[in-house]
Amino acid sequence: MSKFGMFRDRDSKDLFAEAYKEMVASVEKGVDPKEIDALYLGNFTNDFFVHQSHWAPIVSDLIGMTPKPATRTEGACASSALAFREGIFAIASGFYDMVLVGGLEEMSKRTTEEVAEGLALATVPYEGEVGFTFPGVFGALATAYFARYNANREHLMNVTIKSHQNASLNPKAQFKLTVKDMMRAKAESLEKRGMPVPEWADEKAFLNDASVNPVVAWPMHLYDCCPISDGASCMLLVGEEIAKQFTDDPIYVMGIGQGSGKGLHACPDLTYFEATRHAAQEAYSMSGLKPKDIQFSEVHDCFSIAEIIHLEDLGFFEPGTGYKAVEDGLTRLDGSKPINTSGGLKCKGHPVGATGISQLYEVWTQLKGKAGERQVPIKDLHIGAAHNLGGTGGTCTFTILERR
Amino acid sequence: MSKFGMFRDRDSKDLFAEAYKEMVASVEKGVDPKEIDALYLGNFTNDFFVHQSHWAPIVSDLIGMTPKPATRTEGACASSALAFREGIFAIASGFYDMVLVGGLEEMSKRTTEEVAEGLALATVPYEGEVGFTFPGVFGALATAYFARYNANREHLMNVTIKSHQNASLNPKAQFKLTVKDMMRAKAESLEKRGMPVPEWADEKAFLNDASVNPVVAWPMHLYDCCPISDGASCMLLVGEEIAKQFTDDPIYVMGIGQGSGKGLHACPDLTYFEATRHAAQEAYSMSGLKPKDIQFSEVHDCFSIAEIIHLEDLGFFEPGTGYKAVEDGLTRLDGSKPINTSGGLKCKGHPVGATGISQLYEVWTQLKGKAGERQVPIKDLHIGAAHNLGGTGGTCTFTILERR
Repeated sequence: MSKFGMFRDRDSKDLFAEAYKEMVASVEKGVDPKEIDALYLGNFTNDFFVHQSHWAPIVSDLIGMTPKPATRTEGACASSALAFREGIFAIASGFYDMVLVGGLEEMSKRTTEEVAEGLALATVPYEGEVGFTFPGVFGALATAYFARYNANREHLMNVTIKSHQNASLNPKAQFKLTVKDMMRAKAESLEKRGMPVPEWADEKAFLNDASVNPVVAWPMHLYDCCPISDGASCMLLVGEEIAKQFTDDPIYVMGIGQGSGKGLHACPDLTYFEATRHAAQEAYSMSGLKPKDIQFSEVHDCFSIAEIIHLEDLGFFEPGTGYKAVEDGLTRLDGSKPINTSGGLKCKGHPVGATGISQLYEVWTQLKGKAGERQVPIKDLHIGAAHNLGGTGGTCTFTILERR
Repeated sequence: MSKFGMFRDRDSKDLFAEAYKEMVASVEKGVDPKEIDALYLGNFTNDFFVHQSHWAPIVSDLIGMTPKPATRTEGACASSALAFREGIFAIASGFYDMVLVGGLEEMSKRTTEEVAEGLALATVPYEGEVGFTFPGVFGALATAYFARYNANREHLMNVTIKSHQNASLNPKAQFKLTVKDMMRAKAESLEKRGMPVPEWADEKAFLNDASVNPVVAWPMHLYDCCPISDGASCMLLVGEEIAKQFTDDPIYVMGIGQGSGKGLHACPDLTYFEATRHAAQEAYSMSGLKPKDIQFSEVHDCFSIAEIIHLEDLGFFEPGTGYKAVEDGLTRLDGSKPINTSGGLKCKGHPVGATGISQLYEVWTQLKGKAGERQVPIKDLHIGAAHNLGGTGGTCTFTILERR
């Protein structure tokens, strides 16, 4: 994957090229790009963000793949997880042996208002028409969750603190500061300007300071929300029977699941995502694995509350206990079920079309033992997963990878 | 498929529901929609046209398919041909038995300028940046074709006259008038207003009258260009082994091909599409069939010149002879190789995301012998094909169907 961030001087093609070159270089026994049979590319709406659609052939041309097939998939923030899944189908069908899957999004050249407008295209009509944008939607979910389970904002902060901690160990992340780092930086900045420095007792006190962490859509404050990002990601899929031509140590796809969801207007309950549950069930059933078998996972955390709800939907923790598991440190890098070791969407960044495959990139990196300072310290690490959500639950995927 | 046209009082969901209900009713032994495993939906840019993206789950919800998987594909004007192809992969892979594939586009609620802007997002960056929109691109191709093969505008008119003739026999077409009908209508209208009525010697004289058929981007005049349209289409794909549960007379998919193309800036020659040639080769090779085996075909005719060039790229006629084949009547409904029996994009209409599957719907209809007045009069009609192009050749597909 490319570095994620806001890159005013780099476009979608630059970012994809960065990811692609790393992928080619990472194939241990080498790969001739000319052997690749087809491309699937996830992108949400560069139509809006950079006034250009039809990205699959542009990328095909960029990497010299024309005239081979190139197809774009779109499922809002799950766009490239869909590309990954179509790549699997294309190989499993016997049509192709080697498929490149990837994603990209270029968001930072628009104003925040324009990006909010573009993203809101992915809410369903009934939501958009009444004025919901994403922070509002997830604020509503958090409110429902709080009301049912007696949780509160301080529980959400545990997600934020963990995400920043993990991202500080990820060289490709957009935000590489821990919350403590930010406290120090803020204090220094105030001091320099001769202004009084509040005495924040701890990270939560800092996040409770509205001058630092203003409300966006209650109870979603600034540090509950993922940023606007540019980035690209890609991955090479090959048939099982030829995998060892490329590496002695391939990572296997054990289960892929996908679900679709109604909008919030039609949900009987706002404390879970039906589409995530369906995707999880499909992937568990295909793989014969259970939630307890998943040693670590990337989980779609566009907002802090999303991570907690999905932890429950994926079966990692019982409904209504996700927030406690986070509070108890179970999802930390050194916990029993590390979640979002990359820093998650919140801190690694969320260039929406690139996110799904960037999550799988993190799982691959961990399984290969290449995660450096943020390597999951579980012995015999061999099964990881990634969960990606699009829109307000309209599209969800869950993918399980294994190192044998 | 829904009727195609400009429907100010009907939205994308209304149109898809119309197509879907017809599909369900057309399954001879009946189908329980609850058995359908997954949805693939082609849409180009309702993001732009109706300010709503992420259409796959919206349609999944509309037809009661949630929480099953729903994926959008985008390849500009070839978006739903890609959906069809992913449906084939999903079944051939063994993951699913029954997949609904479809497409939709809702364009007419925007101004012509806005639609032109939206469509131009599908040109590649180098083209868009120098001001090319689609009529200009195809005008340039026509100019190159004319220069090389000594063809002229009157040859293009043969395509237009044939398209209108065929569409007049298609109840779902946007334009149901022959060119002769239009001559009569124009004469009546002028007469009513007490204005002089020109004596057009024939249809070509009428199309040469700039007051009737003004230039858009030379040599593309108004009647060389497909219209702005709303519409939807869908098709049910099932595994070969269960097809006879639904009908004693299934239509088989014999070959599917897809190619990607560079932009015009990188083409050595403007008189063919490399991506179409690649798609055709893939489909012929898969099916073991040759161009002469294809008894009739829908061919992407966004502009009249596109039909002629594609006739050559698909191998139906030698390079440089397509325009003569059309002139000689070979591509007419009663010719040796009927092309665009539906009226084509030019007259049936071109709601871009719906077009690919609407072409396959026409092939299905002809193969089933259900095309009524426009039924191809070839005895033992059993092999037909559809060719769909996206952008300026960025995405091309070719699909061959057979009735056994």
